[in-house]
Parts: sequence; structure tokens; C-alpha cells
Amino acid sequence: MNGAETVVRTLVSQGVDLCLANPGTSEMHFLAAMDTQPGLRAVLALHENVATGAADGFARIAGRPASTLLHLGPGLANGLSNLHNASRALSPVVNIVGDHAVAHRRLDAPLTSDIEALARTVGVATRTALPGADIAAETASTIAQARGPVPGVATLLLPADTAWSEATERPVAARAAEPPSAVPDAATLDAAAAALRQPGAVLFLGFGAVRGEALEAAGRIAAATGAALVGQTTNPVLERGLGRVCVERLPFAADAALRRLCGVPALVLAGARAPVAFFARPDQPGRLWPPGCALVELAAPHADAQAALLALADRLGAHSAAGVRRHQAEPAPGGDSWIGQALASSLVEGCIVVDEALTHAVAIAAATASAPPHLCLQNMGGSIGYGAPAATGAALAAGGRPVITLIGDGSAMYTIQALWTQARERLPVITLIIANRAYRILELEAARMQVHPPGPAMQAALHIGAPDLNFVQLAEGMGVPGRRVHNAAQLAAALAEGLRARGPLLIQVDV
Amino acid sequence: MNGAETVVRTLVSQGVDLCLANPGTSEMHFLAAMDTQPGLRAVLALHENVATGAADGFARIAGRPASTLLHLGPGLANGLSNLHNASRALSPVVNIVGDHAVAHRRLDAPLTSDIEALARTVGVATRTALPGADIAAETASTIAQARGPVPGVATLLLPADTAWSEATERPVAARAAEPPSAVPDAATLDAAAAALRQPGAVLFLGFGAVRGEALEAAGRIAAATGAALVGQTTNPVLERGLGRVCVERLPFAADAALRRLCGVPALVLAGARAPVAFFARPDQPGRLWPPGCALVELAAPHADAQAALLALADRLGAHSAAGVRRHQAEPAPGGDSWIGQALASSLVEGCIVVDEALTHAVAIAAATASAPPHLCLQNMGGSIGYGAPAATGAALAAGGRPVITLIGDGSAMYTIQALWTQARERLPVITLIIANRAYRILELEAARMQVHPPGPAMQAALHIGAPDLNFVQLAEGMGVPGRRVHNAAQLAAALAEGLRARGPLLIQVDV
Repeated sequence: MNGAETVVRTLVSQGVDLCLANPGTSEMHFLAAMDTQPGLRAVLALHENVATGAADGFARIAGRPASTLLHLGPGLANGLSNLHNASRALSPVVNIVGDHAVAHRRLDAPLTSDIEALARTVGVATRTALPGADIAAETASTIAQARGPVPGVATLLLPADTAWSEATERPVAARAAEPPSAVPDAATLDAAAAALRQPGAVLFLGFGAVRGEALEAAGRIAAATGAALVGQTTNPVLERGLGRVCVERLPFAADAALRRLCGVPALVLAGARAPVAFFARPDQPGRLWPPGCALVELAAPHADAQAALLALADRLGAHSAAGVRRHQAEPAPGGDSWIGQALASSLVEGCIVVDEALTHAVAIAAATASAPPHLCLQNMGGSIGYGAPAATGAALAAGGRPVITLIGDGSAMYTIQALWTQARERLPVITLIIANRAYRILELEAARMQVHPPGPAMQAALHIGAPDLNFVQLAEGMGVPGRRVHNAAQLAAALAEGLRARGPLLIQVDV
Repeated sequence: MNGAETVVRTLVSQGVDLCLANPGTSEMHFLAAMDTQPGLRAVLALHENVATGAADGFARIAGRPASTLLHLGPGLANGLSNLHNASRALSPVVNIVGDHAVAHRRLDAPLTSDIEALARTVGVATRTALPGADIAAETASTIAQARGPVPGVATLLLPADTAWSEATERPVAARAAEPPSAVPDAATLDAAAAALRQPGAVLFLGFGAVRGEALEAAGRIAAATGAALVGQTTNPVLERGLGRVCVERLPFAADAALRRLCGVPALVLAGARAPVAFFARPDQPGRLWPPGCALVELAAPHADAQAALLALADRLGAHSAAGVRRHQAEPAPGGDSWIGQALASSLVEGCIVVDEALTHAVAIAAATASAPPHLCLQNMGGSIGYGAPAATGAALAAGGRPVITLIGDGSAMYTIQALWTQARERLPVITLIIANRAYRILELEAARMQVHPPGPAMQAALHIGAPDLNFVQLAEGMGVPGRRVHNAAQLAAALAEGLRARGPLLIQVDV
């Protein structure tokens, strides 16, 4: 058994069954190995950032890592920005990168570069499986490190000679059991309880705290203490909709976030990072919690927020979240987006919404707050071009549940190639392109900077409507049917068509 | 004047007049500065790898650097593979990357990453312009290092607070004169002359040696010594066609290259790297020159090959290249590609051909060997997705001369967004997509590995025909007219149409 076969066999034995691939010559033995060692399904992407973004989306829904397969340093570089996003989402990804044979690196052939340096910028672990090493152990360690304790991108560089050479067969330990979850100690629980009882206190939720039992427990705690439930501006997987515990979203705009947290006496962090501004401004602090506000960390972002919140709810004797659930009768303020309203009437229970709507996101979220319960995936690293790839990976994990992607036109163009993989794999992904013909978020920045009228360079950089992008043609060029809509009725009809078809559909929403 | 304005003014004063941009919030002050400090033209790309590949193409034709404008680490990452290609082409690129304000980096906001580490993987120089530093001097040094002595990618990180803060005004030295070109010493010239007189010797040409006066001198040397003129497998700019000195191309496939150089007693390197295999194989050496073959370096890849070859021609008393020019009467062997023949009859003198045809490249090159004189740009770093961006940049430098891009369908999908910039800037670029519905180069690898029949993973990874990519729709979706052709007559007609239109056109060539 050669090294490539050993890697594939180890991946499968450790529970990795999907390989999101954009391979080249150095990865040919790995491809061949997938055909001799069963259990690892290859899905091709036409660009590496589709493969890596799909690995992020897959991990968020499946709760376990997929592998990638990338071609040397440039292949890794192409996929790096969505690995950055995955890393910020604490998504486990087993990132396999082919490398030149070890002796060949010294010759500085055209594709040679410092792959480890690239991988280290996004990774929790980076290693090279040298020929003669214990390849199965190296692979198993990579997978284990991707899983945690802080999950993330673990990269295994596989030199071509490792892949093609006979590997020493050594048994790999069976996958270790998950470590028992750590519950905060009594002092932390008491500090959190005391903090939350202060008027205006905030239970700040992120990562594992905005879903499932953790979210239910947070709702009970809020009901018992009177604390507000505020979520991170973005979260990897947020459960929301009718009957769910309501979580207010901390605004993206730092001035609005500062206003929201102004006067808050205490922030209890449950699976959340302490909030900071996305970007600095000359006249504004970067930390978003006010001076004098106490921070109590109940659970770190990678920790078991569910166990921590359940323990706190128990300590508080908090048994009911009735008052903090979302009910049909409570329309969210600002929910007058016609896109959001059409979406709200179309969402089906259990569906997955991948949100890269940027400047439209808040209004759409308000309108869908009382829609049937659904999962919402958000961009954690801020690098745009995450939506279509993440939706592709989410659909690969979701067992036929529909996925609806909301993307701005500017963002969509970074990774539009994801549509082709959706078509090839016949994935039930409906992609809404919200086409405003601008990098609207930058227009808002320009307005804030009081650049008016914008000069030609600013105009050239912010407006993408000349020539006009026709996403219906782009989609159909990649095998995905496309529709173009201009109002809520047309959008609802197109969404219904997409949900019936159970395959990919693109809807260009002109605004 | 703030830091951003100082950077822009310094770029302009040092001869940089084009900025290939994909900006974000951190770059807003730079955009505003381009509108207050005249002379730097902004051209928007919808993906960073289009911007960086265009900077490579621009530098090759203009002979001077353009700047980029990229958004933090993920923006740089997205453009990194074409910076890798630019770096391998010794193309000067002034790579401007916005960064968070210095104090904001410590807060580890979502877009924070190690930008310098990324930049160092492709760069001749990487620096951060900290607030309070001499910003004009930092900018001028970056430009100077991009220019040489070894030209390449020089990165200037511009933190947001440097951009928005008042910069100290200090005079910048005028641009230094080019250093006098160094001519090889007499001993090297004599060694080269003696080596080339041996039967079977090769004058191995690369970079500056395959164009202009350098190429003419190489022809005279070959005629005088009987040495063969062999070029690197790829070169940044190759002059070829009717009346030009003929240069044989070292084959891409290592086994064919080894056969060509077998028995060669001496290789005189003029602007060329000593040839190595693109990829290692278990049964094959990585160095392509045979044991016992003498290597004489007349000029390093970044050195003044023209001065060196002129000096050698003088020393040899070599006055005529008549015997080694390309004439109409000499069809190149293997020139029976119908694509190549249609192209040969359509090329106009002085046009630019950007070659990313991969498995079709050799046959097309044979067919166009006696076409009107033209420039050929090739991929130097091996990372695919270089063609459409490089053509975009070449056209921005070429003052209306037509550019014809040859790209395989697989390669084209990496950076298809370049078409939009071609449409927006109304660039006379004709893009030929040679659609064989496969990563054909990997199919050849699979055949060589004797993987037959290929299993499902191999099949999935190599074949991109299901669903079929319709490049006409993709082009029209980005504002570029498209045609689809199936034979030489249709192709010639479409090429004629494109040349008449003097704007972008895409031709899908089904093979």
C-alpha cells in the first residue's frame, strides 16, 4: 500500500468520507488511491476556493470534517481565503495539499513555493508527511487536530514521493472518544448569574450557544434573570424562526453596536468572543463593550456552550423560556424587505439559509424572523465569496434538505464557479443573487467618509453595473437554470419552483 | 496630505500610472486619494487574481510595474497564485495591500491574518508602512525593489491609520537611473564561445534573450557556431513569426526534454534557468541536462541578456543570422492543428498571443511559427488561471494592439471574471476557449500511471463535461459577446470579426 492509499484509508477509518478536490499532477496518486480504497467520495470543484468553502459549509452541517485535495502552493493559495473563513468559524477541515517530491523541491521548479508558510496562516496544525514517516499516524494526527480541542484547518502536505512510495504499515489507534465536556466551576456560574441579574445585562451568545439545547437553556436563563440575549454579529450555525428562542443580533456597524451596548453593566460570554469592531475608525474605539462593563466568560467559543448554559440554567432554577420565544404574532421591526417577505413565506422547516446578503442581510433577517424554523449560516471570517461554496458543502451534508443562499452580486462573483459543482452533484441549492450593481457596503463607507461627489477612481471601484452582470446567463453557462425576478410575487414563484425541483436554481433578484 | 495620498503621489512620481484594484473598507482612503492626486488610473477587477494576473501581463508588455490594490490578508490570498506566476516571470509588481489600523490588529477582528507571511511567499520585498514612518520613502523603496536588480513582487502593507493620518512630507529622490548593464567578462565569453563550437551544443535562451536585439544576436551566434537555439519551455515574452530568428522550445514533458538534451555536450545559458522537470517522477531525473554536459552561464535570468549576447556575437565576429530565421517556406513539423492554422492566417503583425493552451499549445505554436511577427506570453509559474488576467493587463499596456488569448476550458474557469474587466475597459482581447471538457493534462498523467480503466474518483476529477460549460453564455453574462465554432473556417471568421470589432470577444472552440 503506498502513501496515498494509506492516507485515504486512514481518512476513512477516522470518519472522513468526503474529499472536495481540485487536483493536479502531484495529486494523481491520491486520486488513484480513492479508487482502490473505498469510502472517500470525490467531489470536484472548478476552483480551490469552492472546495475549501464547501469544506467549511459541510463541517458546519455535518459536525465533522471533510478533506480537501489541493495542488501545491498556488492551489492552496487559491483556496486560502475560504480556509480563513473556516478557521474563524472553528470548522474542522482536513486540508490535504500535494507537494513536489522532496528531492525535487531543491530544483526550484516553477510550481515550488513555501506551502507550509501559507498553511500556517490559517491553520491549527500544519505538517508534511515525509517519505518513510508513519503516514497513517501523521494523517490521524492531522484529523485529530482539525477536530480540536480548538477545531480548525489542519493541513497535511503530501509530497509526491510520499504518495507513490510504499508506506510502512502500522496500526492506527481507533478514533479517540470525545473528551468529557468541561462545565464551568461554581464560582464562574455564580459570577455569571450575579452579572445577568443586573438591569441591562447581556447574555452574549456565539458558536454552539445559538442552537439546540444550548439556545433553549439560554432562553430559560434570560427569562429567569431578565438579561437580554444578544448574539455575535455572525455565527457559524444559528437556529432561528417560529418557536425558537429569539436572539438579537449585534449590529455589524460599530457605531450601532456601541449604541446597543452603551450602559450595559455586564456581558456574560457564552461561546462568544468579546465583541470588537470589524474595522477601526479614526474616531471610534475598537472594543465594543463600554468601559466599566464586566466581562464574564461562561464558555469560550470552542468550548461546550451547551453544558455551560445547562449548568447555569440549573443553578438559576430556570425552567421556562416561554417569554423569549419567537411567535408568529411578533413581526420583527424593520421586516419590510420584499425579498425577506417572499423568503419568509417560502422557507420550509429545517431548511438551511446561507447568508452572504451583506447590506440586505439585516432587513431580510427581520422579515424571516417568524418563518418556519431554519438554520442560518453566516460568514465568520469576513472574506467575501464564502456563500456559494459554503452552500455547496452544506447541501452535501444535509441529506436532501433545501439550501437557500443569499448573496450580493459583488460577493457572488468571487466564487461563482460553485454553481457548476451544484449542477454536477444535483444539489438542492437555490441561489438568490441580490443584484444592486454595486459594492454597496463600500458606498456606505464612502458616504461616511463624506467623499462627495465621488471621483472617477471611487466610482470605478464601487460600481459594478457597467457592463451589467447577467447571472441567469452565468448560471446557465454552468448548467444551473436561472430566473430573474423584480418583485415579491415573482420571487415567491421562483422559490416555489426551486423547492419543487430539488435541484439547483439561481434567481437573480434585481433591486 | 494623508498617508494614502502620499503613496499615490509617490507611485505617480516614480512612473506607476495604473492601479489594478479590488478594494474593501480598509482601502477607501486609497480610493479617495486616487481622486485627489491625479495620474494613477484605477481599473477594477471582480476578483483579486484578475488584478494580480493583469499586473503581470501589464509589466511584460509595458516593461514597468503597475500597482495592485488588495483588501487585507484574504484579498492578498485570493491574488496570490497569479503573484506567484508574476514572481516566476520576474515581472515587476507593486503590490499594495490595505491592513487594519495598527492598534486594531491586536483585537483579532474577523479579517485579521498574517499578511506579511503571505506576501513573503511570493515577494522580493515586503514591508509595512507604519504610521509616522516616511511613507514616501517606503513607497519609493517598494517600487525600486519591484524593479530589481531581480524584478518581482514588492508588497507594501498600508495600515488604515497610515492611510488616513497626516503623513510627514519629505522629498523623495527622483527615480534612480538604471544601473549600467554588466557585460560578461572575457573569460566567460571565451568559455561560452568554446562551448558553443562543440557539435551538438545548445545556446539556451530565456527571459530577455528571446526578443529584440538579444534574439537577433543569438541568431548570429547560432549561425556562426552551429549551436542550436533552444528556448525555455516558457518565457515571459517571446518574439516569433515570419522573419524572426527561430527558437526551438524545450518540451514540457520531462522525458521528451531529456531526449532532446541527451548527448548535448554544453548548454550556454543566456537569460535562462538551467532546465528542470516541472514535476518529479519515480523513474526520472529532475535535472534535464545530461551528466557531463557543461553549463556556462552567459547571463542570469534577470541580467541584461541583450548586452551579453551582443558582446558574444562581437567576440565571435558573428554578423549574420540569415540561416536561422523563420521563412514562409518552412512549415514547422506538427503544424496540422486546425486551430493553429486558422490562427496563423488571422494573426496581425505586432499582436500579442497569451498562451495558456496547455495540451494544445505545441501544435498551435507549430502552426503559427510562420505567422506575421507577434509576441507570445507564457505562464512562468505553472499556476493555471493566468491567461485571461494576463491578457487583460497586456491589453491595458498595448495601446490598442490586439491580444489573443488561448486557454483550455479547465484553466479558463479559474479566472473567468477577467472577461468583465475586458468588457468594462473595452479591451481588444479575443479569448479562445479550447473546450475539450477535461483536465486533459491530467488524463495524460493517468495514462502514464497506467490507471486504466480510471475509477469513479479519477473520472470525477478529470472530466469537466458534465454539466457542459457554455462559455458563450458565461461571456455574455459578463458583457463580452461570444461565438462558438467547430472548424477552421468558422474560427477564422470569428477571429476576423473580433479583430474588426476592436473590443473583447470570446470564441468557444469545441474540440
